[in-house]
Amino acid sequence: MAKIKVGVAGYGTIGQRLADGVALQGDMELVGVADLAPTLAIRALKEKGMPYDLYLVSGSNKASFDALNIPIAGTFEDLVGKVDIMLDSSPAGIGAKNKELYAAKGVKAVFQGGEKNSVADVFFHGYANYEKGLNVDFLKLTSCNTTGLIRSVDCLDRAFGIERVAITIVRRVADPGDYHRGLTNALQIDKAPSHQALDLMTIMPHVEATGILIHTPVTHGHIITVVAKGKVKITKEMAVNAFLKHDRIRVVNIDDGFLGNASFFKYARDLGNPRGDMYEIGLWTDSIVEYGDEIMYAINIPQESVTIPETIDAIRAAMGMQTDRLEAVAATNKYLGIGKWK
Amino acid sequence: MAKIKVGVAGYGTIGQRLADGVALQGDMELVGVADLAPTLAIRALKEKGMPYDLYLVSGSNKASFDALNIPIAGTFEDLVGKVDIMLDSSPAGIGAKNKELYAAKGVKAVFQGGEKNSVADVFFHGYANYEKGLNVDFLKLTSCNTTGLIRSVDCLDRAFGIERVAITIVRRVADPGDYHRGLTNALQIDKAPSHQALDLMTIMPHVEATGILIHTPVTHGHIITVVAKGKVKITKEMAVNAFLKHDRIRVVNIDDGFLGNASFFKYARDLGNPRGDMYEIGLWTDSIVEYGDEIMYAINIPQESVTIPETIDAIRAAMGMQTDRLEAVAATNKYLGIGKWK
Amino acid sequence: MAKIKVGVAGYGTIGQRLADGVALQGDMELVGVADLAPTLAIRALKEKGMPYDLYLVSGSNKASFDALNIPIAGTFEDLVGKVDIMLDSSPAGIGAKNKELYAAKGVKAVFQGGEKNSVADVFFHGYANYEKGLNVDFLKLTSCNTTGLIRSVDCLDRAFGIERVAITIVRRVADPGDYHRGLTNALQIDKAPSHQALDLMTIMPHVEATGILIHTPVTHGHIITVVAKGKVKITKEMAVNAFLKHDRIRVVNIDDGFLGNASFFKYARDLGNPRGDMYEIGLWTDSIVEYGDEIMYAINIPQESVTIPETIDAIRAAMGMQTDRLEAVAATNKYLGIGKWK
Amino acid sequence: MAKIKVGVAGYGTIGQRLADGVALQGDMELVGVADLAPTLAIRALKEKGMPYDLYLVSGSNKASFDALNIPIAGTFEDLVGKVDIMLDSSPAGIGAKNKELYAAKGVKAVFQGGEKNSVADVFFHGYANYEKGLNVDFLKLTSCNTTGLIRSVDCLDRAFGIERVAITIVRRVADPGDYHRGLTNALQIDKAPSHQALDLMTIMPHVEATGILIHTPVTHGHIITVVAKGKVKITKEMAVNAFLKHDRIRVVNIDDGFLGNASFFKYARDLGNPRGDMYEIGLWTDSIVEYGDEIMYAINIPQESVTIPETIDAIRAAMGMQTDRLEAVAATNKYLGIGKWK
Repeated sequence: MAKIKVGVAGYGTIGQRLADGVALQGDMELVGVADLAPTLAIRALKEKGMPYDLYLVSGSNKASFDALNIPIAGTFEDLVGKVDIMLDSSPAGIGAKNKELYAAKGVKAVFQGGEKNSVADVFFHGYANYEKGLNVDFLKLTSCNTTGLIRSVDCLDRAFGIERVAITIVRRVADPGDYHRGLTNALQIDKAPSHQALDLMTIMPHVEATGILIHTPVTHGHIITVVAKGKVKITKEMAVNAFLKHDRIRVVNIDDGFLGNASFFKYARDLGNPRGDMYEIGLWTDSIVEYGDEIMYAINIPQESVTIPETIDAIRAAMGMQTDRLEAVAATNKYLGIGKWK
Repeated sequence: MAKIKVGVAGYGTIGQRLADGVALQGDMELVGVADLAPTLAIRALKEKGMPYDLYLVSGSNKASFDALNIPIAGTFEDLVGKVDIMLDSSPAGIGAKNKELYAAKGVKAVFQGGEKNSVADVFFHGYANYEKGLNVDFLKLTSCNTTGLIRSVDCLDRAFGIERVAITIVRRVADPGDYHRGLTNALQIDKAPSHQALDLMTIMPHVEATGILIHTPVTHGHIITVVAKGKVKITKEMAVNAFLKHDRIRVVNIDDGFLGNASFFKYARDLGNPRGDMYEIGLWTDSIVEYGDEIMYAINIPQESVTIPETIDAIRAAMGMQTDRLEAVAATNKYLGIGKWK
Repeated sequence: MAKIKVGVAGYGTIGQRLADGVALQGDMELVGVADLAPTLAIRALKEKGMPYDLYLVSGSNKASFDALNIPIAGTFEDLVGKVDIMLDSSPAGIGAKNKELYAAKGVKAVFQGGEKNSVADVFFHGYANYEKGLNVDFLKLTSCNTTGLIRSVDCLDRAFGIERVAITIVRRVADPGDYHRGLTNALQIDKAPSHQALDLMTIMPHVEATGILIHTPVTHGHIITVVAKGKVKITKEMAVNAFLKHDRIRVVNIDDGFLGNASFFKYARDLGNPRGDMYEIGLWTDSIVEYGDEIMYAINIPQESVTIPETIDAIRAAMGMQTDRLEAVAATNKYLGIGKWK
Repeated sequence: MAKIKVGVAGYGTIGQRLADGVALQGDMELVGVADLAPTLAIRALKEKGMPYDLYLVSGSNKASFDALNIPIAGTFEDLVGKVDIMLDSSPAGIGAKNKELYAAKGVKAVFQGGEKNSVADVFFHGYANYEKGLNVDFLKLTSCNTTGLIRSVDCLDRAFGIERVAITIVRRVADPGDYHRGLTNALQIDKAPSHQALDLMTIMPHVEATGILIHTPVTHGHIITVVAKGKVKITKEMAVNAFLKHDRIRVVNIDDGFLGNASFFKYARDLGNPRGDMYEIGLWTDSIVEYGDEIMYAINIPQESVTIPETIDAIRAAMGMQTDRLEAVAATNKYLGIGKWK
């Protein structure tokens, strides 16, 4: 079977990781990436010897790339013309514009969480609603927090049934290296309910969800607490056993050294993972407490990389590469090296 | 009626504010404060002209005070000998030792949250269990988070009945000016359940509580989210109306400029409150969401000052100054200027 | 002699403090303050019982004030019509527009550092070039860092003569309560030379200056290191003695508890200063080192309040209230309570 | 020629990077690493498949490793018995104790900056005093700030001659993942002169140096400003040209996207460098300003990895692998991939 040809629009925080993730898939070919300006990410691509071909979106100043001896493989249109599917991680709002080109060229696309839901036919999560994405042209992935959150809720839901969840998102406010946004010595609260709770209900319509989001001045990962009511009483032991079976959830303990979000980042760096990224969410056994007929727990979301596996799942769904949900995620996981640590 | 004579042990973050708060009470007399070394707080006391008499605890180096021309009114024993009741805000563990002196001298005492519960006869909260503190010799106050949290839960409980609460504490990790502790670009999680949930159940034994605490690198106030299940369905409107009637809860909106914990600190500074302190907790109407038969909301806890009113309530209880809960808190509130903004 | 009538345009971080500072001057009268919207600062003014009359600038929505029962004394034009001099702490760029009104009404004005130098006839510092501001119509004050820096350099210059200074500004990136700007886990460098070095040369043209500025994610004060070359060799002892005589410099030691910028903020809060403000810069004796024929030292700049005294000096100069520099600053200091701690 | 056998004591932040760096050297063999407990770094080593043999220092609880199926190659004594030279990155103070074993076994050692200078025969920097380390038994490396600082000062010194330097160190207070130390919303100043200035004078005794250090609440790299007086007037152009020739200095511009320390960390992550590390210091051309007969500039120090190259240089010196300074650093650079980006 021919490899699926994939392009990436927007070589930023998410785009770089999508490109790296696709390049690892044995049944996909990364045709190239597209961007606008010689950012640090593009300069690093050049310093690494251009492992990926670079295409320029309209509005680019090619001379600024020439001045740095950065080779250009063509235009954004050229790239779209060569691929089966585009992963669009352009700045929010640009994806909707790009969609016109994709449609005109008969190319499928997966958009990231920054776009409006209306950009896509299906709002997608690899584990929770894979089947809905099968052979669909335009998918939109859940955002980083929602992607990680749904992993844990879907895990419990498939094991025991979940009726409702109330979440508190303790959100990192910026990524490492961000200078265009930040928060200094302040917590900031958003109006409730948080969009992540609403998004969860879109993906898992049989679950009621609400939540409050609080921004915090850190860069390495969100922490979410979840209060979940099961169709049956879920004990701590039942929950741990379910979580342990999930390939994209790392079950950890505080006593082992996982003291918070920064411990996960340190651990991923120590593992030698590129960029110190981690695809899995973390889940603390020490955080799980039973409460009435509900259960409460906390998870860690590595915001820069958590959506990569589910986005690759989306390629599998859209292109019909696997019709079975578990076969699809297993393929993604295998190529990304997820779960081999077990 | 003679004024109740009050002393303060430990002139640190809490001790300074206790002294200021007692000094404002028309029916109390602040006899003096006791401390060990010429800290910045003591130097500031000197620069202000010694509004409070200073006594030295054992282990002090009096020469270091003399060198700064700081007048000393006597020893800690002298202070205890002159008062009806001591407010003990010594470093954690010292209060238990001091208690022996208080007992020997027949002086009552109120300890702060850093001491073990066993130091006191009653674990106290001015609104929730005032009656239990009546005429008791040794009281221990709830900690800052628990004090503020209970205000809101007790408020709903008295109005509608509360069966259980699940809390997420987004905790400030240090006070402004702290250099002995801190957290840099990291969130840190504690083992669940948090002590605040356990403490709530001690004060309000008819309520089931659990919770997860996450430390964040900020200094101006905790934010707590609460998922509460009432004996009846509590709507947002019902909750808002109940909270609005509580003198130690400020009901605010994000749209009015209260974007997070730092907004409260700014507002208290703009009010001209000494030290930029605020006695009230904040409660965001925008955070309140109904969820199944439960309700969720978020509060802001000004950690340095929030326990001051309830500690003064404790004096009223221990000394039998008021036998009625509402008369007691009203007296405290009046002298502290709480509620006059309504 | 009739009191000088003063108005304040812009009731933000600086404007509030200017109003408070003017209100303390025995020879001035604060006529009122002007602003645009019911910010937290305005809401606090209301809660305090409107100690200052409030005027509305054009573009205000009066209904939004009426809804909060905030009394309005008139329009901005009304305010300007009642005063001798305006202190303009409007957002950057607005001051230049306001100047047309001031000129039309024959009212003098002092602008803050955010405006371009061209807005004013004289770029002013109370200690360094008071005489240049005498009877001038439009003055612009140095920015917070430059104001504090010049205090120390002018102090050494008048005592010993200064030929040149090289500064490193470790800048706080936001004020407490700021949510519109911030920096998270990052230091940010500006192109050299910093404007503060250039501004110093404008005020003190006989001194050569250069410098590098680094933004840091904190809110309570800048720290500046200064490498200064004197006309004579300046020893540490000579420098300390000169600094000790300056009323707007607090000479402190690390061993006394002044560990960094946060210690000054804590100390000012403990002093009971409104908003925890401090008018003086801090100067660490422990930071002073001799180096070749130069001297190096570090100062602390309380960014929110440091320009208030020099701005009030500017009123004295512009209105010709004192012709002597030292008499002018002494009057300002007396009314602000500066130096009484010595 | 047989490869030099190297062991690493202490598999923490520095030890891990030393091991990785040695493993890349074609003329060295990493025999193994030694540590005490199954930290996150050791757990990551296990998850990576034990690329390095692990030895246990005395006091270890072997059962805790067995429980995790972590294979143990032997004791610390076993490791020391197999190597020519140890790199000791144990916690501060432990190295001095280990030295006794090294001496008894006739094994050379390189200690890190946390140990006292007296632990070693020579205080070493690969570029500045390589010859002094030749065939010496015990070397101590300069600390991270001093190592990077000396690179730049030695570079100018060899090109033009340097008489003196005054530095301001804007120091990161913790490493990513640190929970045992931190600073929250505060700058902290150390007593001057900073040890880095003193250390520079030990390594480069013909240069006078002083400096002030300020801790800041960030984790990704220090920034140092340097005011340097040359034997001749050094222009910006002269300095840039000298810096551009140095393999361990990256000359960058703010306009290219290097806005501060976090940009370097982001760039190293984007490069795919393990752990997002960078061996080079950064130097901003935009920061260089001429000042009297002196020059001022700013550098960025990646604290976790900057000492690795010079430590490997130290192996070369101690073992007499290269007698020529430039041949030695060139060998280290080649194997670490430094300079290939030029």
